[in-house]
Amino acid sequence: MQEIHQKFFQDLLGVENAHFDPIHKRAYSYDATKKHYLPDGVLFPRDENDISQILKYCNENKIIVIPRGSGSGFTGGSLAINGGVVLSFEKHMNKILEIDLENLVAVVQPGVINVALQEKVKEYGLFYPPDPASMEYSSLGGNVSENAGGMRAAKYGITKDYVMALRAVLPNGEIIRAGKKTIKDVAGYNLAGILIASEGSLAVLSEITLKLVALPKFKKTAMGIFNSIDDAMNAVYKTLAKGVTPVSMEFLDQLSIQALEQKFQKGLPIDAGAILIADVDGNVEEAIEADLKILQESFYESGVREFKIAKDEQEAADIWFARRNCSQSIVMYGNLKLNEDITVPRSKLPELLKGIAEISKKYGFKIPCFGHTGDGNVHTNVMVSDKNNPELVKKGYEAVEEVFKLTVSLGGTLSGEHGIGISKAPFMKLAFSEAEMNLMRNIKKAFDPNNILNPFKMGL
Amino acid sequence: MQEIHQKFFQDLLGVENAHFDPIHKRAYSYDATKKHYLPDGVLFPRDENDISQILKYCNENKIIVIPRGSGSGFTGGSLAINGGVVLSFEKHMNKILEIDLENLVAVVQPGVINVALQEKVKEYGLFYPPDPASMEYSSLGGNVSENAGGMRAAKYGITKDYVMALRAVLPNGEIIRAGKKTIKDVAGYNLAGILIASEGSLAVLSEITLKLVALPKFKKTAMGIFNSIDDAMNAVYKTLAKGVTPVSMEFLDQLSIQALEQKFQKGLPIDAGAILIADVDGNVEEAIEADLKILQESFYESGVREFKIAKDEQEAADIWFARRNCSQSIVMYGNLKLNEDITVPRSKLPELLKGIAEISKKYGFKIPCFGHTGDGNVHTNVMVSDKNNPELVKKGYEAVEEVFKLTVSLGGTLSGEHGIGISKAPFMKLAFSEAEMNLMRNIKKAFDPNNILNPFKMGL
Repeated sequence: MQEIHQKFFQDLLGVENAHFDPIHKRAYSYDATKKHYLPDGVLFPRDENDISQILKYCNENKIIVIPRGSGSGFTGGSLAINGGVVLSFEKHMNKILEIDLENLVAVVQPGVINVALQEKVKEYGLFYPPDPASMEYSSLGGNVSENAGGMRAAKYGITKDYVMALRAVLPNGEIIRAGKKTIKDVAGYNLAGILIASEGSLAVLSEITLKLVALPKFKKTAMGIFNSIDDAMNAVYKTLAKGVTPVSMEFLDQLSIQALEQKFQKGLPIDAGAILIADVDGNVEEAIEADLKILQESFYESGVREFKIAKDEQEAADIWFARRNCSQSIVMYGNLKLNEDITVPRSKLPELLKGIAEISKKYGFKIPCFGHTGDGNVHTNVMVSDKNNPELVKKGYEAVEEVFKLTVSLGGTLSGEHGIGISKAPFMKLAFSEAEMNLMRNIKKAFDPNNILNPFKMGL
Repeated sequence: MQEIHQKFFQDLLGVENAHFDPIHKRAYSYDATKKHYLPDGVLFPRDENDISQILKYCNENKIIVIPRGSGSGFTGGSLAINGGVVLSFEKHMNKILEIDLENLVAVVQPGVINVALQEKVKEYGLFYPPDPASMEYSSLGGNVSENAGGMRAAKYGITKDYVMALRAVLPNGEIIRAGKKTIKDVAGYNLAGILIASEGSLAVLSEITLKLVALPKFKKTAMGIFNSIDDAMNAVYKTLAKGVTPVSMEFLDQLSIQALEQKFQKGLPIDAGAILIADVDGNVEEAIEADLKILQESFYESGVREFKIAKDEQEAADIWFARRNCSQSIVMYGNLKLNEDITVPRSKLPELLKGIAEISKKYGFKIPCFGHTGDGNVHTNVMVSDKNNPELVKKGYEAVEEVFKLTVSLGGTLSGEHGIGISKAPFMKLAFSEAEMNLMRNIKKAFDPNNILNPFKMGL
């Protein structure tokens, strides 16, 4: 990066907030994809005005700007693939600005960690439901930019369902507000709607207003063991159709169950086709009991071979142990895990899983699957036995591409939670027409005519 | 309209679907604003392909296109203010295409009337919650384009919370899909998000996929009479903060109560500051009883002077009678009603209503208010005593402008439900900065570079 630019940033932010040394660059070069791209600098804006000044300068000088949350993304959204300056909010812009008890909203800066907000609002008996697996370290700015999901989506929805308003800085430095602290707002275009999930490519978020709900008082956990995936999916459908929406409704397939049992010997049924784990919550014990009764009925009507309701928190934790340890258990099938977060309409899950079994057979990889049946979001894992065999790795990626094609053919999406970034960019053409891609490019241009903000991501 | 254009449309659609006579033009010239603007033609596309052909031709020939639902809008969104052809979906594109029981979604064409969907899904024990007051005649295409709200928003949210996917035709005739039949989808920009509430100015909707929920089995109605608006608002806050979210939580102010009592003599307390009416629903009677108990506690803690739970449907209907007949009762205060659907964060309602009382005093108009406290959406009615007195009418609009200024100063929005259209376009500058307006204009251009689709609305 040219000295004159370095000097501008140091004068603006102070030398303590503008770094161009190799150590900082290295520290902000990676994300959860484990890929590395060195940025030209790392900036820590102190406030919205800093962001505005930085963007205005970068826009005039055609310097690429990469907004970065915690670098926990799975698709490279925060990687500086073409250099540029990284904007990090973790040093200064990490404050919970307001918990508004009367309107049940929180106002936060983008660098606040998801779990920090969850813990803070719990003190007031309130609840921020979106719980991506990364919640202990991922930032809310990142969550909004990727529209993060989580375990509770079946009942409580995902990040976009909680974003009431945003403040953001456009690439030209102008500050905009989008949305209000109101449930209803239909004045002008839904700018917040298009900023959510835009992976930091349209504007830099400077303030986020999130909806909160009351913390449910009670929660219960149930588990069902099924002979087949079809039976399990039928149980899911019946439960929902009868008006019970569990907080989570998670499944493990046979490969996942077998891997767990091999690793932990907890007595899991290795001949079972699927396990479903469901949490039900609410404020009234009678209502939860009634919900569990309906859930139990639905499971039995679908041929569950074993059904259990956890009697206490310990039993609930034992049940959840399997789901929580899936990801680490399946590494027995290979030392390279190509995991994707495809999502299909719930009814297509059996067909998806059958198709994946065929892909598994065709390519000779085990592909254990587990995830969120409540919302059709499946974590598929193509397990490559030897990551140092380039032939095999290439074949692994071919299997992944087939999984994507199958998903799209079933009306599904390339990504339920992780976004597109660079990892899934090559597959965008499977899911979007040229007209749709062009429209997205035009929208990008409407916000960012000089293409300085996180450019060349998402296949744009 | 030039003969050559008329001939194109008649050849494409058949003469029975392309009309240029004065009667058709007149019939499609108005909406609920009671303003009239004659279009140059009225077209009834039979399918998405027709829409595509029409738009392609209009784009090439710079002919304005106005998509129209049922013409029930309150802000002129479907008025042909600069001529052009009206696209109406009521003749052909009015079908419910699919009720997908496994995924709990409905797929509809834009011309389906809201209540037709509600009744259809009820047959399956399902529920489509958005219920704008116009639901018996407004179309779902219009509902999505305006992001319609309704009485049930406090618990169930608004139209945007139910739109899972859209098919739409761009002004150049290209067909796009936005979203999926999946709860989670984070691939690419949130195109459905920006199409919702865009008032038919970005693309023409050709198919809508809506989320359904299970129909709650039980509902109960409660009513509280309060000495002041502040007490009533406090009761709303306490109820929500304790984890009870009523389906609706409606209020009437003193002027509304007095007008109702004068017209109907139902024994309403004309000295009361406010009445709150709340519906609570659910699948388990015990849970509803528990919710009502919390609601009652919250009301008593807030100084309710009379509290009642309806024993049966008749009593519930009696309680709702007041709310339902508000709008027609307040005409005693003037023969011109300037009604707006402003929305503020719930906590600002007392301040808003105090401010409105001052505006009322300053201008000498009665301004009765009622509406949705659960979501801060207030129907304010500036009652002008003589609509034939231009001086007075002008003053009435000045009072409305002050109400908007007050609303915006309290963090509120010009419109919670009705949209901007032409009626509220002059006030957009009160609510949006030049940067925000420019951004919206750039987005409009990204979709519609020739500005043929419902142009010059929303202050753009």
